[in-house]
Amino acid sequence: MTGEQGQPAFVLVRPQMGENIGAAARAMWNFGLDRMRLVEPRDGWPNPASVAMASGAGRLLDGAQLSQDVPEAVGDCDLVLATTARARGMTKPVYSPEAAMRAARERIDAGGRVAVLFGPERAGLENADVAVANGIISVPVNPEFPSLNLAQCVLLCAYEWRRAAGEVVDERVELAGAEWASTIEVEKLAEHYEGRLDEAGFFFPDHKAAAMKLTLRNLWSRMPLTREDVKTLHGVMRQMVRWKERG
Amino acid sequence: MTGEQGQPAFVLVRPQMGENIGAAARAMWNFGLDRMRLVEPRDGWPNPASVAMASGAGRLLDGAQLSQDVPEAVGDCDLVLATTARARGMTKPVYSPEAAMRAARERIDAGGRVAVLFGPERAGLENADVAVANGIISVPVNPEFPSLNLAQCVLLCAYEWRRAAGEVVDERVELAGAEWASTIEVEKLAEHYEGRLDEAGFFFPDHKAAAMKLTLRNLWSRMPLTREDVKTLHGVMRQMVRWKERG
Repeated sequence: MTGEQGQPAFVLVRPQMGENIGAAARAMWNFGLDRMRLVEPRDGWPNPASVAMASGAGRLLDGAQLSQDVPEAVGDCDLVLATTARARGMTKPVYSPEAAMRAARERIDAGGRVAVLFGPERAGLENADVAVANGIISVPVNPEFPSLNLAQCVLLCAYEWRRAAGEVVDERVELAGAEWASTIEVEKLAEHYEGRLDEAGFFFPDHKAAAMKLTLRNLWSRMPLTREDVKTLHGVMRQMVRWKERG
Repeated sequence: MTGEQGQPAFVLVRPQMGENIGAAARAMWNFGLDRMRLVEPRDGWPNPASVAMASGAGRLLDGAQLSQDVPEAVGDCDLVLATTARARGMTKPVYSPEAAMRAARERIDAGGRVAVLFGPERAGLENADVAVANGIISVPVNPEFPSLNLAQCVLLCAYEWRRAAGEVVDERVELAGAEWASTIEVEKLAEHYEGRLDEAGFFFPDHKAAAMKLTLRNLWSRMPLTREDVKTLHGVMRQMVRWKERG
């Protein structure tokens, strides 16, 4: 599913600090993306500061494709999405990161090639860069503090790619390896407690006993108990009885 | 909708570098979150390096609540979620960031209070910290390169919070009128059982005592306990002790 062609290229356009290129590489690889492209990095290429920062994701820098301008960088792609802070009145579809990466997934599954553009640290993409794109990605930041940096923007898009790629079991991944107690096991636990608490005089006064027993039954049945939990809770009660019997 | 109580607290547990606390504050505020709590920051508090890094989100540092330990930091919360890289065989529900923030949203909409725990930079949360939590958040990173830093982890959770906050929450049949037990109430229940079971000789042999105590703590924190449940469970233990004392 994620062969050479099975993922979008992330294109850093005129990035300034080498460290940020390295941090972007890490953010990509955190979510399994390794196709980086660079357009006119300010401090030339290769860049030792990038390598130092990328530790563990240096392979992405080695494999990065270098281009003179945006049209050249995305020439082989048929869906190009530009990340921008403001949509700036451009008449283009604006996607959330989630919708964008879903669209990227669909296009790639259909045999297409996708690029995502990220602008320079301070200024962001220029209008001429955005003009090449088919759509805009806008991260839903706090309007009072819309200060995502380059690597953070890359991180969020990479994260959404991984979610869209379906490599993520999205819902609650249930208790890894846990075995849930069966109803009959919970029932026996309830009986154990009920029996011992009866002996111990817990269900008092008499006319409240039935309601108290029901409360306790509901408590056990409502809990997400594993087999281990049930064993532990049996152990708790058994020990209290043993303690009593030792006198 | 997002007043003082309308959002989760993000709790940084024993953070090391002041810069990372500042970066975490920025990441939170990027997505509109401003309730930060700190447990034993390594370099003391306040920390000038944090302030320098937080520029624009310094208000979060000024308002950060400082605590001695995790139970104190989350004592007023009734849903506590711990971010960890590995689920480490803990028998707790594991959530994706998306599912976790949806659960947080639902709990807060129902009048509850939610905390999300983030561990120290290198080591992550300790088992004793995770034992206080009701569930685990696991970011679906590339298993070959699972190297998210603190601020990145905060960023992804804050981003998912904002997404969850904007969505229409599905109708769910929550326990009608149930009041969830707060963490401090569950903590006291755990202490009550631990103390009495210790007297009763439950934690035997000695070299297994710590692990047994952790198992029991995890059991309580993992259960969706209401205040009524906690009262009932205190009653159960109190009665067994009374029975023993009657001889």
